[in-house]
Amino acid sequence: MIDVYSWATPNGHKVHIMLEETGLAYRVHPVDIGAGDQFKPDFLAISPNNKIPAIVDSEGPKRADGQPFSLFESGAILIYLAEKTGRFLPADPAERYATFQWLMFQMGGLGPMLGQAHHFRIYAPEQIDYAVTRYTNEAKRLYGVMDAQLARTAYLAGNQYTIADIAAFPWTRSWQNQGIDLDAFPHVKRWHEEVAARPAVQRGVEVLASARKPLMDEKAKEVLFGATQYAKH
Amino acid sequence: MIDVYSWATPNGHKVHIMLEETGLAYRVHPVDIGAGDQFKPDFLAISPNNKIPAIVDSEGPKRADGQPFSLFESGAILIYLAEKTGRFLPADPAERYATFQWLMFQMGGLGPMLGQAHHFRIYAPEQIDYAVTRYTNEAKRLYGVMDAQLARTAYLAGNQYTIADIAAFPWTRSWQNQGIDLDAFPHVKRWHEEVAARPAVQRGVEVLASARKPLMDEKAKEVLFGATQYAKH
Repeated sequence: MIDVYSWATPNGHKVHIMLEETGLAYRVHPVDIGAGDQFKPDFLAISPNNKIPAIVDSEGPKRADGQPFSLFESGAILIYLAEKTGRFLPADPAERYATFQWLMFQMGGLGPMLGQAHHFRIYAPEQIDYAVTRYTNEAKRLYGVMDAQLARTAYLAGNQYTIADIAAFPWTRSWQNQGIDLDAFPHVKRWHEEVAARPAVQRGVEVLASARKPLMDEKAKEVLFGATQYAKH
Repeated sequence: MIDVYSWATPNGHKVHIMLEETGLAYRVHPVDIGAGDQFKPDFLAISPNNKIPAIVDSEGPKRADGQPFSLFESGAILIYLAEKTGRFLPADPAERYATFQWLMFQMGGLGPMLGQAHHFRIYAPEQIDYAVTRYTNEAKRLYGVMDAQLARTAYLAGNQYTIADIAAFPWTRSWQNQGIDLDAFPHVKRWHEEVAARPAVQRGVEVLASARKPLMDEKAKEVLFGATQYAKH
């Protein structure tokens, strides 16, 4: 059984989608990041960077210290679940490394930069034009990189649906918040609609969705962007 | 033979260090990102996100399209070189996924957020206090996460030196630019000094170092942060 400690955000969706796609048995434990659950000791013990998602797999590899197998960082969890099931990570070496390449593009570029776009466009307490422009431009540039790739191949890493798509897709669901006109990126749009239509994806994005408040209150803003995260826990 | 298209920045250093650590034969091709080399068609053909580093391995896996095997994204290159040589990625499954976990921590958190700290603390054309505070606080938080981990284990992913350390180390070399007092993070400092003392690391950080200008001129700032990167190439 896989225990998932998560929330209905893009990084959480990645793992929820992967679990639905693979059909692995799992239980979800909500970590309300607006309420500060990510700073609780039990969660920090498996996710010391205080970020969701994290997993514990009771049937995972044995650890030298005898503790249950746990893992944080959505990109690492995707690789683990792909190798555990033999799904969504091609066996062909060239295609396998292409998948890692586009997974890293999501982890190192698309996710962090769209995250900054969300922050300065929506959540920051002051309007900072320089930062809004910087991250909106970067969002458009990154969609352009994906569009050029998806003009050549059906999916990001080639002609198979992989963990690179599962990683990138949830970040493109909130394109409107990123200043993106999806019609300007027709290949991303085609890919986005195709991935969104997969039944496992539709189930995955619903996981914990009803628990997440649609609007962020002042407490949530403080917990996520204020001094709380820099205090000792 | 591995051809490396790179520059003397933290993401470039990762691959230079890994090549020195593994003893693989390689040739370096400078991509002067201050001069705009990253927008040249030959480079974009192997690195469509216009970022260094990228590699071409003439003895790499066969691609279905018959093209030489190439790879971009430093994190993907590290995994590839680790699996090619059987070095710096533990065979034990639990340790292997712990390595991926801390590699992803670097790729998704440490690198992007320290990059934003560098930008707003040093390169941005205006002083934006909110952004300087945001990313300096995040830098301190991330060093704190590493410090807590390195208080328990010799290296980031456990008691072996891995690609997670090779990925994180170059980003901690410019701690002063990030508003970090390294003495406040004694376990990071111990680890940093130990990694810095490795002969292969010392050779790796010197690769292309003399080609990189110490200060950025106005043209370089425009190329890196201005409109150039958002134009069609």
